[in-house]
Amino acid sequence: MITLYTYNTINGQVAELVLHCLEQPHQIKTVDLMKGEQRSAEFLKMNPSGRIPVLVDPAERDGRDKPLVVSQTGAIVTYLGRQYGDAWYPQNESSRSQVDEWIWFQLTDISTNLFNNFYLKSLIEVPQPEAANVLRDRALDFYQVFDQALKVRAYLTGSDMTLADLVSFPVVHASAKYGLTDRYAGLKRWYRDMQADLKIRSWLDRLR
Amino acid sequence: MITLYTYNTINGQVAELVLHCLEQPHQIKTVDLMKGEQRSAEFLKMNPSGRIPVLVDPAERDGRDKPLVVSQTGAIVTYLGRQYGDAWYPQNESSRSQVDEWIWFQLTDISTNLFNNFYLKSLIEVPQPEAANVLRDRALDFYQVFDQALKVRAYLTGSDMTLADLVSFPVVHASAKYGLTDRYAGLKRWYRDMQADLKIRSWLDRLR
Ligand SMILES: N[C@@H](CCC(=O)N[C@@H](CS)C(=O)NCC(=O)O)C(=O)O
Ligand SMILES: N[C@@H](CCC(=O)N[C@@H](CS)C(=O)NCC(=O)O)C(=O)O
Repeated sequence: MITLYTYNTINGQVAELVLHCLEQPHQIKTVDLMKGEQRSAEFLKMNPSGRIPVLVDPAERDGRDKPLVVSQTGAIVTYLGRQYGDAWYPQNESSRSQVDEWIWFQLTDISTNLFNNFYLKSLIEVPQPEAANVLRDRALDFYQVFDQALKVRAYLTGSDMTLADLVSFPVVHASAKYGLTDRYAGLKRWYRDMQADLKIRSWLDRLR
Repeated sequence: MITLYTYNTINGQVAELVLHCLEQPHQIKTVDLMKGEQRSAEFLKMNPSGRIPVLVDPAERDGRDKPLVVSQTGAIVTYLGRQYGDAWYPQNESSRSQVDEWIWFQLTDISTNLFNNFYLKSLIEVPQPEAANVLRDRALDFYQVFDQALKVRAYLTGSDMTLADLVSFPVVHASAKYGLTDRYAGLKRWYRDMQADLKIRSWLDRLR
């Protein structure tokens, strides 16, 4: 069975939501970041950069015939899409590259900087709240581009929900507190539709 | 022929280096960021977020039978790998997910924050050099993980150069000024080998 090493952060949630929606049986192993478990020798062997999420899939073997280990949220979700999520990660190049485009946009320009917002405020010795706010606001401004797309189509890349929507959902959900969905009508409609989806609803229920 | 809309930034260089090494005939259209050309109506139609690089490939059609347009460095290079770079982007899942892992690591945790270093120092009204340095140093520290890998193998994922190495090269090249290669012996050896590669050498010659 697939094992996800994770913790309740946005990146962790993204990997978990994808596993949940692709209906892949999996077990969760919590890596307590507050206790520094990400720096244990055992964990560093799986991800030498000492971060969650990490996925282990015994159905796929690595070069030494060991279960495949994948780190990096983006690499994990696209791996899962290729292996188990045809409907979520279309094979034709034109659709696939569009899904990728949104995933990269979400994870580089938005998620990384919302993490930086937290990092610069809470994880360093001399907090840098002003710079943190600059990066947070720049990241949230980018949702204008999501909003634009979501005003003319149901989901980010068209009429079907894809990996791109799943990767974006936990971040938008966590950013509701910044008035994000009040600011963007298209994003608000999408957020409501996403929440109404049965699979996402059952994931949210577990999250609470 | 493929067109790359770009400017001489690290992200732009990454897309260009990949096109060069995959030997894909292409033309470069410079989008002068200093003149704000990325905000022209024509460019925003291709990338509503107003950033380079953007790739247009007439060999592939989008849903409306128009030439495919792809933005986001990571989406562009993996698209090129899938279409034109079998040797650079291995098809078997175990190898491909490892290449992806390094690309994501490079582009999220390192490149995005080296860009933030520049952004917080040079592109905002009230520069935030301290926070910029925090993010820069964190990003450069991550090369320790690259160094560790490059001490035991020739290239990031094994004995062959892949997309992962290409995506990392321009960033390491531009970061030599931070003493990066003095600090990390494995990275230094790799950087020297990469520079000695004929294709990379010819790309560097054009860059100068
Ligand atoms: N680019 C990485 C970022 C991973 C990351 O930042 N993980 C954080 C939690 S969201 C972590 O494990 N931090 C622990 C640490 O830095 O010690 C990814 O997308 O997976
Ligand atoms: N995550 C994006 C970032 C793109 C990006 O930041 N592009 C910069 C140059 S490296 C740009 O075009 N900036 C122009 C602007 O923001 O106005 C990618 O990887 O393509």
